[in-house]
Amino acid sequence: PDIRQQIAQTPELQPAQDAPLRSTPIRAVVLTNADVDHVAGLLSLRERQPFAIYATTQVLATLEANSIFNVLDPALVPRRILPPAEELAICDADGHDTGVTVESFPVPGKIALYLEERSRPEANFSSDAGDTIGVRITGAGSRGSVFYIPGCARIDATLRTRLADAACVLFDGTVYTDDEMIAAGVGQKTGARMGHLAMSGDAGSIAALA
Amino acid sequence: PDIRQQIAQTPELQPAQDAPLRSTPIRAVVLTNADVDHVAGLLSLRERQPFAIYATTQVLATLEANSIFNVLDPALVPRRILPPAEELAICDADGHDTGVTVESFPVPGKIALYLEERSRPEANFSSDAGDTIGVRITGAGSRGSVFYIPGCARIDATLRTRLADAACVLFDGTVYTDDEMIAAGVGQKTGARMGHLAMSGDAGSIAALA
Repeated sequence: PDIRQQIAQTPELQPAQDAPLRSTPIRAVVLTNADVDHVAGLLSLRERQPFAIYATTQVLATLEANSIFNVLDPALVPRRILPPAEELAICDADGHDTGVTVESFPVPGKIALYLEERSRPEANFSSDAGDTIGVRITGAGSRGSVFYIPGCARIDATLRTRLADAACVLFDGTVYTDDEMIAAGVGQKTGARMGHLAMSGDAGSIAALA
Repeated sequence: PDIRQQIAQTPELQPAQDAPLRSTPIRAVVLTNADVDHVAGLLSLRERQPFAIYATTQVLATLEANSIFNVLDPALVPRRILPPAEELAICDADGHDTGVTVESFPVPGKIALYLEERSRPEANFSSDAGDTIGVRITGAGSRGSVFYIPGCARIDATLRTRLADAACVLFDGTVYTDDEMIAAGVGQKTGARMGHLAMSGDAGSIAALA
Protein backbone atom coordinates (compact mmCIF):
# COMPACT_ATOMS: atom_id res chain seq x y z
CA PRO A 1 0.00 0.00 0.00
CA ASP A 2 3.04 2.30 0.21
CA ILE A 3 3.77 1.86 -3.50
CA ARG A 4 2.24 5.22 -4.37
CA GLN A 5 4.85 7.00 -2.25
CA GLN A 6 7.62 4.66 -3.38
CA ILE A 7 6.90 5.56 -7.00
CA ALA A 8 6.70 9.26 -6.13
CA GLN A 9 10.15 9.05 -4.53
CA THR A 10 11.81 6.92 -7.22
CA PRO A 11 12.26 8.50 -10.66
CA GLU A 12 13.13 5.11 -12.18
CA LEU A 13 9.58 3.92 -11.40
CA GLN A 14 7.92 6.96 -12.96
CA PRO A 15 6.80 7.42 -16.58
CA ALA A 16 9.61 8.75 -18.77
CA GLN A 17 9.35 12.36 -19.94
CA ASP A 18 8.62 11.26 -23.50
CA ALA A 19 6.34 8.35 -22.55
CA PRO A 20 2.59 8.33 -23.25
CA LEU A 21 0.11 9.50 -20.61
CA ARG A 22 -0.60 6.87 -17.94
CA SER A 23 2.35 4.70 -18.96
CA THR A 24 4.70 3.02 -16.51
CA PRO A 25 8.22 1.61 -16.73
CA ILE A 26 7.14 -1.16 -14.31
CA ARG A 27 7.12 -4.23 -16.53
CA ALA A 28 6.80 -7.03 -13.99
CA VAL A 29 6.07 -7.63 -10.31
CA VAL A 30 7.51 -10.61 -8.42
CA LEU A 31 5.65 -11.48 -5.20
CA THR A 32 7.40 -13.36 -2.41
CA ASN A 33 4.27 -13.93 -0.31
CA ALA A 34 0.59 -12.98 -0.04
CA ASP A 35 0.85 -10.73 3.03
CA VAL A 36 -1.13 -7.56 2.64
CA ASP A 37 2.00 -5.41 2.62
CA HIS A 38 3.26 -7.44 -0.35
CA VAL A 39 0.11 -7.58 -2.49
CA ALA A 40 -2.03 -4.53 -1.66
CA GLY A 41 0.22 -2.31 -3.80
CA LEU A 42 -1.09 -4.16 -6.85
CA LEU A 43 -4.36 -2.29 -6.31
CA SER A 44 -2.50 0.96 -6.98
CA LEU A 45 -1.26 -0.35 -10.35
CA ARG A 46 -4.78 -0.58 -11.77
CA GLU A 47 -4.90 2.07 -14.49
CA ARG A 48 -4.79 -0.45 -17.33
CA GLN A 49 -1.05 -0.52 -17.91
CA PRO A 50 0.30 -3.92 -18.97
CA PHE A 51 2.77 -5.71 -16.71
CA ALA A 52 3.31 -9.29 -15.56
CA ILE A 53 2.81 -10.77 -12.09
CA TYR A 54 5.04 -13.66 -10.97
CA ALA A 55 4.26 -15.64 -7.81
CA THR A 56 4.04 -19.14 -6.41
CA THR A 57 0.91 -21.18 -7.03
CA GLN A 58 -0.16 -20.53 -3.42
CA VAL A 59 0.11 -16.77 -3.78
CA LEU A 60 -1.60 -16.78 -7.19
CA ALA A 61 -4.45 -18.81 -5.66
CA THR A 62 -4.90 -16.14 -3.00
CA LEU A 63 -5.07 -13.40 -5.64
CA GLU A 64 -7.58 -15.51 -7.56
CA ALA A 65 -9.72 -16.01 -4.45
CA ASN A 66 -9.92 -12.26 -3.80
CA SER A 67 -12.01 -10.71 -6.57
CA ILE A 68 -10.74 -7.22 -5.76
CA PHE A 69 -7.56 -8.10 -7.67
CA ASN A 70 -9.69 -8.35 -10.81
CA VAL A 71 -9.10 -4.59 -11.10
CA LEU A 72 -5.98 -5.89 -12.82
CA ASP A 73 -7.49 -7.20 -16.05
CA PRO A 74 -5.81 -10.58 -16.77
CA ALA A 75 -5.83 -9.64 -20.46
CA LEU A 76 -3.39 -6.82 -19.65
CA VAL A 77 -1.73 -8.19 -16.53
CA PRO A 78 -0.93 -11.89 -16.96
CA ARG A 79 -0.31 -13.92 -13.81
CA ARG A 80 2.55 -16.38 -14.11
CA ILE A 81 3.80 -19.16 -11.89
CA LEU A 82 7.21 -18.69 -10.32
CA PRO A 83 8.43 -22.29 -10.13
CA PRO A 84 10.67 -23.25 -7.21
CA ALA A 85 14.38 -23.87 -7.69
CA GLU A 86 14.51 -22.77 -11.29
CA GLU A 87 16.17 -19.75 -12.83
CA LEU A 88 13.46 -17.90 -14.70
CA ALA A 89 13.78 -15.02 -17.17
CA ILE A 90 11.30 -12.36 -16.07
CA CYS A 91 9.30 -11.15 -19.09
CA ASP A 92 6.86 -8.29 -19.50
CA ALA A 93 3.18 -8.73 -20.34
CA ASP A 94 4.00 -9.27 -24.01
CA GLY A 95 6.64 -11.90 -23.29
CA HIS A 96 9.66 -9.68 -23.92
CA ASP A 97 12.60 -10.47 -21.67
CA THR A 98 13.23 -7.73 -19.09
CA GLY A 99 16.84 -8.81 -18.67
CA VAL A 100 16.22 -9.83 -15.08
CA THR A 101 16.34 -13.46 -13.99
CA VAL A 102 14.90 -14.71 -10.72
CA GLU A 103 15.45 -17.98 -8.93
CA SER A 104 12.98 -18.61 -6.14
CA PHE A 105 13.30 -20.93 -3.18
CA PRO A 106 10.96 -21.62 -0.25
CA VAL A 107 12.04 -20.31 3.14
CA PRO A 108 10.64 -21.10 6.59
CA GLY A 109 7.73 -18.69 6.94
CA LYS A 110 4.08 -18.32 7.68
CA ILE A 111 0.87 -18.02 5.72
CA ALA A 112 -0.55 -14.52 5.38
CA LEU A 113 -2.23 -13.13 8.50
CA TYR A 114 -5.60 -12.80 6.79
CA LEU A 115 -5.52 -16.49 5.79
CA GLU A 116 -5.10 -17.66 9.38
CA GLU A 117 -8.13 -19.41 10.80
CA ARG A 118 -9.61 -17.03 13.33
CA SER A 119 -11.24 -19.89 15.18
CA ARG A 120 -7.84 -21.41 15.94
CA PRO A 121 -5.67 -18.50 17.09
CA GLU A 122 -3.13 -20.82 18.71
CA ALA A 123 -2.76 -23.09 15.71
CA ASN A 124 0.58 -23.32 13.99
CA PHE A 125 0.48 -21.26 10.82
CA SER A 126 4.10 -21.81 9.96
CA SER A 127 4.81 -22.97 6.45
CA ASP A 128 7.81 -24.30 4.61
CA ALA A 129 5.99 -25.10 1.42
CA GLY A 130 6.08 -21.99 -0.67
CA ASP A 131 3.78 -19.59 1.14
CA THR A 132 6.92 -17.53 1.73
CA ILE A 133 9.83 -17.53 -0.66
CA GLY A 134 13.16 -15.87 -1.13
CA VAL A 135 14.53 -14.89 -4.51
CA ARG A 136 17.95 -14.60 -6.10
CA ILE A 137 17.91 -11.74 -8.58
CA THR A 138 20.40 -11.38 -11.42
CA GLY A 139 20.54 -8.58 -13.95
CA ALA A 140 21.50 -9.01 -17.59
CA GLY A 141 25.26 -8.88 -17.98
CA SER A 142 25.96 -8.76 -14.26
CA ARG A 143 28.13 -11.40 -12.66
CA GLY A 144 26.75 -11.09 -9.13
CA SER A 145 23.31 -11.71 -7.69
CA VAL A 146 21.21 -10.19 -4.93
CA PHE A 147 19.29 -12.38 -2.52
CA TYR A 148 16.00 -10.84 -1.38
CA ILE A 149 14.36 -12.61 1.56
CA PRO A 150 11.84 -10.20 3.09
CA GLY A 151 10.16 -12.70 5.41
CA CYS A 152 11.91 -15.63 7.08
CA ALA A 153 11.12 -17.50 10.29
CA ARG A 154 14.50 -19.18 10.78
CA ILE A 155 17.78 -19.85 9.03
CA ASP A 156 18.11 -23.57 8.51
CA ALA A 157 21.03 -25.52 7.06
CA THR A 158 19.63 -25.35 3.53
CA LEU A 159 19.33 -21.59 3.61
CA ARG A 160 22.73 -21.16 5.26
CA THR A 161 24.35 -23.19 2.50
CA ARG A 162 22.49 -21.26 -0.18
CA LEU A 163 23.67 -17.91 1.16
CA ALA A 164 27.25 -18.97 1.99
CA ASP A 165 28.86 -17.22 -0.97
CA ALA A 166 26.29 -14.49 -1.49
CA ALA A 167 27.63 -11.09 -2.50
CA CYS A 168 24.55 -9.28 -1.21
CA VAL A 169 21.62 -10.37 0.97
CA LEU A 170 18.56 -8.26 1.77
CA PHE A 171 17.04 -10.07 4.73
CA ASP A 172 13.88 -9.79 6.88
CA GLY A 173 14.38 -6.87 9.27
CA THR A 174 10.85 -6.81 10.71
CA VAL A 175 11.93 -7.03 14.36
CA TYR A 176 15.27 -6.35 16.03
CA THR A 177 14.32 -8.21 19.22
CA ASP A 178 11.68 -10.92 19.22
CA ASP A 179 9.43 -9.28 21.84
CA GLU A 180 9.86 -5.63 20.85
CA MET A 181 6.18 -5.07 20.01
CA ILE A 182 5.17 -6.41 23.42
CA ALA A 183 7.86 -4.33 25.15
CA ALA A 184 6.68 -1.20 23.35
CA GLY A 185 3.07 -1.90 24.29
CA VAL A 186 1.88 -1.93 20.68
CA GLY A 187 1.00 -5.60 20.26
CA GLN A 188 0.88 -9.05 21.79
CA LYS A 189 2.76 -10.94 19.12
CA THR A 190 6.41 -11.93 19.00
CA GLY A 191 8.39 -11.83 15.79
CA ALA A 192 8.40 -15.63 15.83
CA ARG A 193 4.58 -15.71 15.97
CA MET A 194 4.51 -13.46 12.91
CA GLY A 195 6.97 -15.65 11.01
CA HIS A 196 9.88 -13.23 11.37
CA LEU A 197 13.29 -14.10 12.80
CA ALA A 198 14.66 -11.34 15.04
CA MET A 199 17.84 -9.61 13.88
CA SER A 200 19.63 -9.50 17.25
CA GLY A 201 20.78 -12.12 19.73
CA ASP A 202 22.72 -15.35 19.52
CA ALA A 203 19.93 -16.95 17.49
CA GLY A 204 19.23 -13.84 15.43
CA SER A 205 19.76 -13.31 11.74
CA ILE A 206 22.81 -11.06 12.12
CA ALA A 207 24.70 -13.76 14.03
CA ALA A 208 23.48 -16.51 11.73
CA LEU A 209 24.55 -14.70 8.57
CA ALA A 210 27.83 -13.28 9.92
CA PRO B 1 -5.25 3.50 -1.45
CA ASP B 2 -4.46 7.21 -1.09
CA ILE B 3 -5.48 7.20 2.58
CA ARG B 4 -1.87 7.10 3.74
CA GLN B 5 -1.20 10.46 2.11
CA GLN B 6 -4.57 11.85 3.16
CA ILE B 7 -3.76 11.08 6.79
CA ALA B 8 -0.25 12.54 6.40
CA GLN B 9 -1.77 15.79 5.08
CA THR B 10 -4.63 16.04 7.60
CA PRO B 11 -3.68 16.65 11.25
CA GLU B 12 -7.24 15.82 12.38
CA LEU B 13 -6.75 12.25 11.15
CA GLN B 14 -3.43 11.79 12.94
CA PRO B 15 -2.85 10.49 16.49
CA ALA B 16 -3.04 13.27 19.06
CA GLN B 17 0.24 14.37 20.68
CA ASP B 18 -0.75 12.78 23.99
CA ALA B 19 -2.33 9.66 22.46
CA PRO B 20 -0.82 6.17 22.83
CA LEU B 21 1.51 4.76 20.18
CA ARG B 22 -0.33 3.41 17.13
CA SER B 23 -3.62 5.04 18.09
CA THR B 24 -5.94 6.81 15.66
CA PRO B 25 -8.71 9.38 15.98
CA ILE B 26 -10.54 7.58 13.13
CA ARG B 27 -13.50 6.01 14.92
CA ALA B 28 -15.68 4.91 12.02
CA VAL B 29 -15.60 4.49 8.24
CA VAL B 30 -18.73 4.82 6.09
CA LEU B 31 -18.46 3.21 2.65
CA THR B 32 -20.67 4.39 -0.21
CA ASN B 33 -19.68 1.61 -2.62
CA ALA B 34 -17.24 -1.27 -3.09
CA ASP B 35 -15.06 0.27 -5.80
CA VAL B 36 -11.39 -0.26 -5.16
CA ASP B 37 -10.77 3.45 -4.58
CA HIS B 38 -13.38 3.35 -1.82
CA VAL B 39 -12.38 0.17 0.01
CA ALA B 40 -8.64 -0.40 -0.58
CA GLY B 41 -7.78 2.26 2.02
CA LEU B 42 -9.14 -0.10 4.68
CA LEU B 43 -6.03 -2.20 4.11
CA SER B 44 -3.93 0.72 5.35
CA LEU B 45 -5.92 0.86 8.62
CA ARG B 46 -4.78 -2.59 9.69
CA GLU B 47 -2.56 -2.00 12.72
CA ARG B 48 -5.13 -3.30 15.20
CA GLN B 49 -6.82 -0.03 16.08
CA PRO B 50 -10.56 -0.35 16.79
CA PHE B 51 -13.02 1.45 14.53
CA ALA B 52 -16.38 0.62 12.98
CA ILE B 53 -17.21 0.03 9.30
CA TYR B 54 -20.66 1.00 8.00
CA ALA B 55 -21.85 -0.10 4.56
CA THR B 56 -24.80 -1.55 2.68
CA THR B 57 -25.37 -5.29 2.76
CA GLN B 58 -24.03 -5.50 -0.81
CA VAL B 59 -20.77 -3.77 0.07
CA LEU B 60 -20.34 -5.77 3.29
CA ALA B 61 -20.85 -8.97 1.27
CA THR B 62 -18.02 -7.93 -1.04
CA LEU B 63 -15.69 -7.30 1.92
CA GLU B 64 -16.70 -10.69 3.32
CA ALA B 65 -15.99 -12.41 0.00
CA ASN B 66 -12.46 -10.96 -0.16
CA SER B 67 -10.41 -12.58 2.60
CA ILE B 68 -7.75 -9.90 2.37
CA PHE B 69 -10.04 -7.64 4.42
CA ASN B 70 -9.62 -10.09 7.31
CA VAL B 71 -6.50 -8.06 8.14
CA LEU B 72 -9.14 -6.00 9.93
CA ASP B 73 -9.96 -8.33 12.82
CA PRO B 74 -13.78 -8.30 13.22
CA ALA B 75 -13.24 -8.42 16.99
CA LEU B 76 -11.65 -4.96 16.77
CA VAL B 77 -13.33 -3.61 13.65
CA PRO B 78 -17.05 -4.45 13.64
CA ARG B 79 -18.88 -4.31 10.31
CA ARG B 80 -22.33 -2.78 10.53
CA ILE B 81 -25.18 -2.50 8.06
CA LEU B 82 -26.06 0.98 6.88
CA PRO B 83 -29.81 0.63 6.31
CA PRO B 84 -31.37 2.64 3.49
CA ALA B 85 -33.55 5.67 4.20
CA GLU B 86 -32.91 5.76 7.92
CA GLU B 87 -31.01 8.31 9.98
CA LEU B 88 -28.36 6.36 11.83
CA ALA B 89 -26.11 7.50 14.68
CA ILE B 90 -22.56 6.50 13.74
CA CYS B 91 -20.89 4.80 16.71
CA ASP B 92 -17.31 3.72 17.30
CA ALA B 93 -16.23 0.10 17.75
CA ASP B 94 -17.37 0.12 21.38
CA GLY B 95 -20.80 1.52 20.53
CA HIS B 96 -20.12 5.08 21.70
CA ASP B 97 -21.90 7.71 19.63
CA THR B 98 -19.47 9.73 17.50
CA GLY B 99 -21.94 12.61 17.25
CA VAL B 100 -22.29 12.12 13.51
CA THR B 101 -25.52 10.88 11.97
CA VAL B 102 -25.76 9.49 8.45
CA GLU B 103 -28.80 8.90 6.29
CA SER B 104 -28.07 6.78 3.24
CA PHE B 105 -30.04 6.49 0.04
CA PRO B 106 -29.44 4.50 -3.15
CA VAL B 107 -28.42 6.46 -6.23
CA PRO B 108 -28.25 5.33 -9.85
CA GLY B 109 -24.82 3.74 -10.14
CA LYS B 110 -22.87 0.70 -11.13
CA ILE B 111 -21.41 -2.34 -9.42
CA ALA B 112 -17.68 -2.23 -8.73
CA LEU B 113 -15.44 -2.76 -11.76
CA TYR B 114 -13.87 -5.89 -10.31
CA LEU B 115 -17.31 -7.47 -9.82
CA GLU B 116 -18.24 -7.09 -13.48
CA GLU B 117 -18.42 -10.34 -15.40
CA ARG B 118 -15.43 -10.37 -17.71
CA SER B 119 -17.15 -12.75 -20.07
CA ARG B 120 -19.89 -10.21 -20.71
CA PRO B 121 -18.09 -6.91 -21.27
CA GLU B 122 -21.11 -5.35 -22.98
CA ALA B 123 -23.58 -6.34 -20.28
CA ASN B 124 -25.36 -3.64 -18.33
CA PHE B 125 -23.72 -3.33 -14.93
CA SER B 126 -25.84 -0.40 -13.84
CA SER B 127 -27.47 -0.72 -10.47
CA ASP B 128 -30.11 1.19 -8.57
CA ALA B 129 -30.33 -1.20 -5.68
CA GLY B 130 -27.73 -0.09 -3.19
CA ASP B 131 -24.45 -0.96 -4.85
CA THR B 132 -23.86 2.78 -4.91
CA ILE B 133 -25.31 5.09 -2.29
CA GLY B 134 -25.25 8.73 -1.32
CA VAL B 135 -25.23 9.91 2.27
CA ARG B 136 -26.55 12.90 4.15
CA ILE B 137 -24.17 13.72 6.99
CA THR B 138 -25.14 15.73 10.05
CA GLY B 139 -22.88 16.68 12.93
CA ALA B 140 -24.00 16.87 16.55
CA GLY B 141 -25.52 20.27 17.27
CA SER B 142 -25.38 21.43 13.68
CA ARG B 143 -28.55 22.50 11.92
CA GLY B 144 -27.38 21.87 8.37
CA SER B 145 -26.35 18.72 6.57
CA VAL B 146 -23.86 17.82 3.87
CA PHE B 147 -24.81 15.50 1.04
CA TYR B 148 -21.93 13.31 -0.16
CA ILE B 149 -22.59 11.51 -3.45
CA PRO B 150 -19.22 10.42 -4.85
CA GLY B 151 -20.57 8.18 -7.62
CA CYS B 152 -23.80 8.77 -9.50
CA ALA B 153 -24.88 7.73 -13.00
CA ARG B 154 -27.79 10.16 -13.42
CA ILE B 155 -29.93 12.62 -11.50
CA ASP B 156 -33.48 11.31 -11.45
CA ALA B 157 -36.59 12.96 -10.03
CA THR B 158 -36.15 11.30 -6.64
CA LEU B 159 -32.62 12.59 -6.25
CA ARG B 160 -33.53 16.04 -7.54
CA THR B 161 -36.28 16.31 -4.93
CA ARG B 162 -33.98 15.08 -2.18
CA LEU B 163 -31.34 17.68 -2.97
CA ALA B 164 -33.74 20.58 -3.63
CA ASP B 165 -33.10 22.36 -0.33
CA ALA B 166 -29.59 21.08 0.34
CA ALA B 167 -27.17 23.57 1.90
CA CYS B 168 -24.12 21.68 0.60
CA VAL B 169 -23.68 18.89 -1.95
CA LEU B 170 -20.41 17.10 -2.71
CA PHE B 171 -21.16 15.38 -6.02
CA ASP B 172 -19.40 12.93 -8.36
CA GLY B 173 -16.76 14.89 -10.31
CA THR B 174 -15.10 11.93 -12.00
CA VAL B 175 -15.44 13.30 -15.55
CA TYR B 176 -16.09 16.82 -16.83
CA THR B 177 -17.09 15.62 -20.30
CA ASP B 178 -18.43 12.13 -20.89
CA ASP B 179 -15.77 11.13 -23.45
CA GLU B 180 -12.75 12.87 -21.95
CA MET B 181 -10.76 9.68 -21.36
CA ILE B 182 -11.26 8.66 -24.99
CA ALA B 183 -10.36 12.17 -26.20
CA ALA B 184 -7.18 12.16 -24.10
CA GLY B 185 -6.23 8.73 -25.41
CA VAL B 186 -6.04 7.17 -21.96
CA GLY B 187 -9.01 4.82 -22.10
CA GLN B 188 -11.95 3.49 -24.09
CA LYS B 189 -14.69 4.06 -21.55
CA THR B 190 -17.13 6.92 -21.26
CA GLY B 191 -18.15 8.32 -17.90
CA ALA B 192 -21.58 6.78 -18.44
CA ARG B 193 -20.03 3.32 -18.92
CA MET B 194 -18.23 3.77 -15.60
CA GLY B 195 -21.40 4.84 -13.81
CA HIS B 196 -20.42 8.51 -13.60
CA LEU B 197 -22.52 11.42 -14.84
CA ALA B 198 -20.43 14.09 -16.57
CA MET B 199 -20.30 17.51 -14.92
CA SER B 200 -20.68 19.62 -18.07
CA GLY B 201 -23.32 19.91 -20.78
CA ASP B 202 -27.07 20.31 -20.84
CA ALA B 203 -27.51 16.86 -19.29
CA GLY B 204 -24.58 17.25 -16.90
CA SER B 205 -24.64 17.44 -13.13
CA ILE B 206 -23.86 21.17 -12.96
CA ALA B 207 -26.94 22.01 -15.04
CA ALA B 208 -29.09 19.48 -13.23
CA LEU B 209 -28.18 20.78 -9.79
CA ALA B 210 -28.18 24.49 -10.65
